Amino acid sequence: MDDESLVLAEGLVKGSYVRQGGEGYKRRRKLVKSLLSQRRLPAEGWDEKQVELFLAQVALLDTNNFVGHAGAGEREGRVYSDIVRRRHFGMSHGIGRSGDISAHQPKGAGGSLLQSVCHFLAADALRLSGSPSLSSCVVVPMATGMALSMVFMWLRKCRPGATCVFWPRIDQKTCLKAQIYSDLEPVIVPQIKEEDGDAVQSNPEWIRHALMDEDGDFFHRKDHILCILATTACFAPRVPDDIPSLAVIARDAGIPLVVNNAYGVQSATIMKSIERACKIGRVDAVVQSTDKNFMVPVGGAVIASPSAESIEAMSKLYPGRANSAPVVDLMITLLAMGAKGWKEVLNHRSRLLPELKARLSDVANEFGERLLSVDGNDVSIAMTLDTFNHPSAIGSALFHRNITGTRTFVAKAKLPEGRKPTSVGGFQFAEYGSHIDGYPHSYLNVACAIGLEESEMHVFFSRLRKVLQDQRKKEEKETKGGKDRNKDEGEG
Amino acid sequence: MDDESLVLAEGLVKGSYVRQGGEGYKRRRKLVKSLLSQRRLPAEGWDEKQVELFLAQVALLDTNNFVGHAGAGEREGRVYSDIVRRRHFGMSHGIGRSGDISAHQPKGAGGSLLQSVCHFLAADALRLSGSPSLSSCVVVPMATGMALSMVFMWLRKCRPGATCVFWPRIDQKTCLKAQIYSDLEPVIVPQIKEEDGDAVQSNPEWIRHALMDEDGDFFHRKDHILCILATTACFAPRVPDDIPSLAVIARDAGIPLVVNNAYGVQSATIMKSIERACKIGRVDAVVQSTDKNFMVPVGGAVIASPSAESIEAMSKLYPGRANSAPVVDLMITLLAMGAKGWKEVLNHRSRLLPELKARLSDVANEFGERLLSVDGNDVSIAMTLDTFNHPSAIGSALFHRNITGTRTFVAKAKLPEGRKPTSVGGFQFAEYGSHIDGYPHSYLNVACAIGLEESEMHVFFSRLRKVLQDQRKKEEKETKGGKDRNKDEGEG
Amino acid sequence: MDDESLVLAEGLVKGSYVRQGGEGYKRRRKLVKSLLSQRRLPAEGWDEKQVELFLAQVALLDTNNFVGHAGAGEREGRVYSDIVRRRHFGMSHGIGRSGDISAHQPKGAGGSLLQSVCHFLAADALRLSGSPSLSSCVVVPMATGMALSMVFMWLRKCRPGATCVFWPRIDQKTCLKAQIYSDLEPVIVPQIKEEDGDAVQSNPEWIRHALMDEDGDFFHRKDHILCILATTACFAPRVPDDIPSLAVIARDAGIPLVVNNAYGVQSATIMKSIERACKIGRVDAVVQSTDKNFMVPVGGAVIASPSAESIEAMSKLYPGRANSAPVVDLMITLLAMGAKGWKEVLNHRSRLLPELKARLSDVANEFGERLLSVDGNDVSIAMTLDTFNHPSAIGSALFHRNITGTRTFVAKAKLPEGRKPTSVGGFQFAEYGSHIDGYPHSYLNVACAIGLEESEMHVFFSRLRKVLQDQRKKEEKETKGGKDRNKDEGEG
Amino acid sequence: MDDESLVLAEGLVKGSYVRQGGEGYKRRRKLVKSLLSQRRLPAEGWDEKQVELFLAQVALLDTNNFVGHAGAGEREGRVYSDIVRRRHFGMSHGIGRSGDISAHQPKGAGGSLLQSVCHFLAADALRLSGSPSLSSCVVVPMATGMALSMVFMWLRKCRPGATCVFWPRIDQKTCLKAQIYSDLEPVIVPQIKEEDGDAVQSNPEWIRHALMDEDGDFFHRKDHILCILATTACFAPRVPDDIPSLAVIARDAGIPLVVNNAYGVQSATIMKSIERACKIGRVDAVVQSTDKNFMVPVGGAVIASPSAESIEAMSKLYPGRANSAPVVDLMITLLAMGAKGWKEVLNHRSRLLPELKARLSDVANEFGERLLSVDGNDVSIAMTLDTFNHPSAIGSALFHRNITGTRTFVAKAKLPEGRKPTSVGGFQFAEYGSHIDGYPHSYLNVACAIGLEESEMHVFFSRLRKVLQDQRKKEEKETKGGKDRNKDEGEG
Repeated sequence: MDDESLVLAEGLVKGSYVRQGGEGYKRRRKLVKSLLSQRRLPAEGWDEKQVELFLAQVALLDTNNFVGHAGAGEREGRVYSDIVRRRHFGMSHGIGRSGDISAHQPKGAGGSLLQSVCHFLAADALRLSGSPSLSSCVVVPMATGMALSMVFMWLRKCRPGATCVFWPRIDQKTCLKAQIYSDLEPVIVPQIKEEDGDAVQSNPEWIRHALMDEDGDFFHRKDHILCILATTACFAPRVPDDIPSLAVIARDAGIPLVVNNAYGVQSATIMKSIERACKIGRVDAVVQSTDKNFMVPVGGAVIASPSAESIEAMSKLYPGRANSAPVVDLMITLLAMGAKGWKEVLNHRSRLLPELKARLSDVANEFGERLLSVDGNDVSIAMTLDTFNHPSAIGSALFHRNITGTRTFVAKAKLPEGRKPTSVGGFQFAEYGSHIDGYPHSYLNVACAIGLEESEMHVFFSRLRKVLQDQRKKEEKETKGGKDRNKDEGEG
Repeated sequence: MDDESLVLAEGLVKGSYVRQGGEGYKRRRKLVKSLLSQRRLPAEGWDEKQVELFLAQVALLDTNNFVGHAGAGEREGRVYSDIVRRRHFGMSHGIGRSGDISAHQPKGAGGSLLQSVCHFLAADALRLSGSPSLSSCVVVPMATGMALSMVFMWLRKCRPGATCVFWPRIDQKTCLKAQIYSDLEPVIVPQIKEEDGDAVQSNPEWIRHALMDEDGDFFHRKDHILCILATTACFAPRVPDDIPSLAVIARDAGIPLVVNNAYGVQSATIMKSIERACKIGRVDAVVQSTDKNFMVPVGGAVIASPSAESIEAMSKLYPGRANSAPVVDLMITLLAMGAKGWKEVLNHRSRLLPELKARLSDVANEFGERLLSVDGNDVSIAMTLDTFNHPSAIGSALFHRNITGTRTFVAKAKLPEGRKPTSVGGFQFAEYGSHIDGYPHSYLNVACAIGLEESEMHVFFSRLRKVLQDQRKKEEKETKGGKDRNKDEGEG
Repeated sequence: MDDESLVLAEGLVKGSYVRQGGEGYKRRRKLVKSLLSQRRLPAEGWDEKQVELFLAQVALLDTNNFVGHAGAGEREGRVYSDIVRRRHFGMSHGIGRSGDISAHQPKGAGGSLLQSVCHFLAADALRLSGSPSLSSCVVVPMATGMALSMVFMWLRKCRPGATCVFWPRIDQKTCLKAQIYSDLEPVIVPQIKEEDGDAVQSNPEWIRHALMDEDGDFFHRKDHILCILATTACFAPRVPDDIPSLAVIARDAGIPLVVNNAYGVQSATIMKSIERACKIGRVDAVVQSTDKNFMVPVGGAVIASPSAESIEAMSKLYPGRANSAPVVDLMITLLAMGAKGWKEVLNHRSRLLPELKARLSDVANEFGERLLSVDGNDVSIAMTLDTFNHPSAIGSALFHRNITGTRTFVAKAKLPEGRKPTSVGGFQFAEYGSHIDGYPHSYLNVACAIGLEESEMHVFFSRLRKVLQDQRKKEEKETKGGKDRNKDEGEG
Repeated sequence: MDDESLVLAEGLVKGSYVRQGGEGYKRRRKLVKSLLSQRRLPAEGWDEKQVELFLAQVALLDTNNFVGHAGAGEREGRVYSDIVRRRHFGMSHGIGRSGDISAHQPKGAGGSLLQSVCHFLAADALRLSGSPSLSSCVVVPMATGMALSMVFMWLRKCRPGATCVFWPRIDQKTCLKAQIYSDLEPVIVPQIKEEDGDAVQSNPEWIRHALMDEDGDFFHRKDHILCILATTACFAPRVPDDIPSLAVIARDAGIPLVVNNAYGVQSATIMKSIERACKIGRVDAVVQSTDKNFMVPVGGAVIASPSAESIEAMSKLYPGRANSAPVVDLMITLLAMGAKGWKEVLNHRSRLLPELKARLSDVANEFGERLLSVDGNDVSIAMTLDTFNHPSAIGSALFHRNITGTRTFVAKAKLPEGRKPTSVGGFQFAEYGSHIDGYPHSYLNVACAIGLEESEMHVFFSRLRKVLQDQRKKEEKETKGGKDRNKDEGEG
């Protein structure tokens, strides 16, 4: 309804009521204007009506929603099912054009607009999380694995013939498989356990030395190296890689640095370290999951970079159009959050973290266990399970009590003899899960992830306690049974 | 998105695409302007996106959707459940104000606008159906029964002390109960079966005579008479009352005429007879069901009248606010139909009627039955069931085969001895269903109602044939069994 | 998906995952079973998915949703618009049948089930609010005014010839118009202002005496009296009528008592007084608004009674089917609340009340005003506006600042000379709004209504303060201007 | 509602109605059982209610929808925005797991089930279109370009070191960019124009010879060849590649054959040729767009193969999870179509084709043009634009009249001198668009694509006629203007 329609409405409903209503309506219109002119998260999140109205209006810019449109091509955005049409708000052209995922579409001005909006909102969200240097980004309808692969394929064009990736080990399959998918050769940089603590981390200097000639010169070897692939957010006891140091090495060696920041946006510590890395060294691309950081369904990633050129080059490499759902999901979510809401979910997580640690520590102590001392990881926490014979039974019991997402690691000593190594994409790992061979503890991982509710945490702890008690009893019975059997045998 | 936002969008998406999109968008805006300025059904029905956008925009005129609104009253349109909020498109103030169902609401300019739009669309739909004289109407969130009662309560204010209703009998409970609800006394005008046909109809002259003194003067008796209540659409063999003749009597006698036009809007014959009645006589109010004529869920009625004053007086009598769902449903539906779609559904019904009759006649003949010859009823058709012993078993068998809506009437001869009369609101009817006592045939009613699909009709006939065959076999077996038993007894 | 389908799913997805999923699914099914077997509010509110699934499943019980259904009647639940179909969850048969709003529908088992569920949920909600005696109820798709009228029409059948209503005055139009609509004669029972406070209330004994002969006998006059119509929730300074005393009089006199409990369900004080009235006297029907108490859109009412027979008799009187939207809205909302949520919203309101009073008192004091001392009204509060010349300007300024729902009363002294009395349905009130003639104060009403948010309250107070300041300045300027003008004139 | 709930419902609503409703309900349940047991398209398409109910039920198998679930991991399917949650039907875990896009998810049994269902429905749809041999498939949330790239990356693992692709030229950017993205080297197989017609096609034997040694032996060269990449559906005058012949060469040479069947599923001719190719030769993977063939929004592809092993290997290569929207869209659409609906849309297209050709031919003749004679292409049609000076103005005029999807090719003779070659991903094409250099005609492409409505076609032709008339007039004026100017000059 434009102003003319509002005036016409005064002919049908008492003028002063319509004018009062019109004032409200215009405030709504102003929200859209602010969004498009200021190009950042709205100060306050938009309510549902506002978001839906915006989507409905934008959809009308697509040709398939024109009154009197006729399509004569092979791809006209026709949608057979009304359920499908509605769930996409009437937009069906996806994003991008042949050979550029960020290209605007003549038939889909509306969809293109949503993509542009999503890009500046995502960049603003990264800025608010602590990394203003990541000023350019593209949101791709691929989860982190494929998004990393897209970065690699772009680097392959930039560095013909380079096929090695220096990769500080992380026991997370997707990350390794992304390299294999892209036909690359990982050079696995080993992790080291702290002497005086429980943390597991890699030494950036290992890479610097590995890159050097005997003369301390980078020149000869670096052309085989596609990039360094560093990881931030990870399961304790591993800690995020030292991104600033790696960025300096990357700069010195003239080698790209790619950061797998899968769920690191929620951690101010991580985002600040990335920011610092951008400032003092070389960072080529930072890949983050949309679902793990922004609470949208799985399947999108934000590829960010300090360099607009790099983002543009990657976008241009993408062959053909793509599905817009993850882009639209993220845009809706960021509009619904607004700057205030986004800061709130970030702060809520930070506030929960000490409580989660304290309470997990309490539970651990009750059972003669303790928290692993891992300072550098503020998303994932681990408590030991060293007093239990079957740590893995605990994770599975939790799952059956509707606690998802915990993970148990079983130390080698407790595994059956002759246990086969884990194979991932053709690589063999003698021990997999602790990012290192020979980790001395069994443990349980718990994450303090964005969106975790206090009430969930309470439910979790009460069920964890119950599960540990049950397991303890079960194992005591076993032991007793075992002893009794031994006695019998002794007597036999 | 207003023009400023579209210009801003050009900063984000290629200008020519946005401008092309903007053209499409403006054509959409023009549809709203046309609606509000021309105040009639749009020529072409609106598509879903257009309807939803209009609803979303109008909702923003309600105060509870204002950004920064705060409510300090006892009735602020707060909605607890999101499911409920969404199904009402964010509008929660209903319609009307204390004591006038058509009054505009200071807090609900949007809802008030929808009501105004609904009123002019409904009047236009009645015009297109054949009754331009019904130029004023109010859509009430009550089905026909309560809507008739509302008309009666208004007439009671106009004619203090009048409590009788002259009512040509129709065997439809709601119609009688509406009178009882309103504390009125029905004077039941008997129906007469044609000599040379099967139709059942009332004689308007009966009423004229009943109203007159010995001197042929209306004066003395008429003050006790609240109104004549005539019925149009009805189940065959009854035919619609002769509205023009009754309107002339009403005019001559100075007595209001109320027409129960429950599902008559779909019949051009009926609508033209009402139109003629308005032209040559007195018609005070015509009540039609929204669900039976416009394919919306049950629960609304259109009260129409040639007199804007009467409609206004009725609206003003209504105590308090009311639920807007039936009004919004009708508005959405009429916008979705447009003039073209509305004419199409009307014509589709007219086209199906001869086919339905012919095919029902074929089935009837196959079983030694025939159609009742009832010329004046073009909605309901009846085939005899005189060769069956248990006609009512047929309706029930159809229901179990997912054929709903047929109705069987069983002639007195086939009913068990000592069958009790039917009691409706305290009135006793020796025989109920054929609108008359002593109707000679058993029969099955089928309606050619708006929205009936050809495919449904085919399904109906194939199952009807099956049901009649089964019943025939069953009855033959019974008869045979009976004879055999008789034989046995004879032999005994 | 039934158990067989879950087993089949195991052929498609890893069995243990499906079984785990199936466990979750079965817990959902159990919720429905509990609802239908225990017939009260679920302990915890249902989430959206659960409510929507229940609605979707129930809808499948309606014949128009049968696979292979064909309709041969005049009323087949056909819906033209998909938007309309979806907003009604695929149910289109409304509620009730000809002549009984609670009758089950052969074509609409699903809709009938929702109505039954709504009835027991509503009764349970009334029980939790403090009135277990109101054990029977019917939810009607009419707001309180029409619902009261429905109660009156039923009483007219019970008490033929009785046309007077004893009605303690309340200046609320709907309540009076409901009587007029039903063709009744109000006997207005006057309100009296407390000597030592600000409250306005009626004296039950006035009614007792008015009903008696000189001999102290009820017999002769009572047959003209249809009922006593008492009001609970109302705008301060009026307080709820003394329902227990009136119930005793009603019992003694053998006259029905109808309680207009429009927004009283949210007040434990009111609900307990109704409960006590049911216990010690006669209460025939209690009518409450669905929107004002349960946060649903306008247009429904709960008619409750200690007598199942009375509710059944009223339901049976209703002529024809009715719109189900208000019933479904209420059912959804009560399921979404659950017992816990319903108690929470009630408690939240109780907790806000003292704060609202304290803060309003603070604002009042700042401007030399005070709260009216009205103990018996715990929903509506009033602060005086005696130091302002134009109290009504304040309400209107608030409305323009998006504060809705306040109401200003202007004392006679401040009104212009020769102000006409207010006419409602033909009745004249010299002063209207304070429920009494000659109330000495001007005042502003604010409600502590269910659903009020703390944040709204803060917004309200900050804008109220601003509005009062502006008005004060404006009036001071006027006065000064007036004085200056006077001076000029003096000099002239 | 399970059977127990239905029985409980009988306690609330008349038993016979509930039982009748329950029958309807059970027929619905049977549809789900049939789907999961028969694993093919339902005979009749499901209605909206059925699809939505299935989605709602399946969603309950995901852990995030469990009552009483608590998440302790970094990825718990939390969704911030209700709009987003609803559009994904409450499912948020996407598809696949780390390193296998078809792996089932412990947390997302529901989503996994939808994916399985989608796979068998898609395979069945391909079967019904004419290629039963394509019995295995994976639906990926990537459009054809990225899906082709995924096939290439898989082949790279199978054929280490092979980097060349034999690619019969098609002037469609995505197809070439997919090769570049995957770091491959296209060997462009030239197209040849027919002598006696207008068609443009490649000669399979060219490839056979190119692959052979001087001795007619494939052995030495083939290891450099990753695959042959053939194209089916394309813009006239190009015709689909001869897939059966290429499949035989592929088999003989031991080289994979990949078919880019972007919008070929809608053509029975193409699908049968693929089927024959599978029968007589080697076909490794056939990639088809979901949006172009199944009328869903852009962004999905079906990768099909006669070999279940190949599909499994590709799925296993995919790094990480993926977005499920395209999978769910396709599943919904195929359920909504059913076998009957799918055949209907295919047949509808076949029926429109001759009419579209005839009418386009009529228009062409009116303007002295003709259809290009291209027998082998039954999706794209072309009419010459040889009598126009500015053919490209015609496409652009159509776009401004809301006709999208036509494409104009301008013959070299009409291009300005010194026109630069077209560059795609670093490759230069002297002339781009006609798949060949030196095509003698300018022409306009029109597609007879699935989902084209008759009414659209009429609109298209009436506007095309108008556009051609306008352009003709404009050019005549220009010519005249030119002549006049020349005359003036001559006179000067």
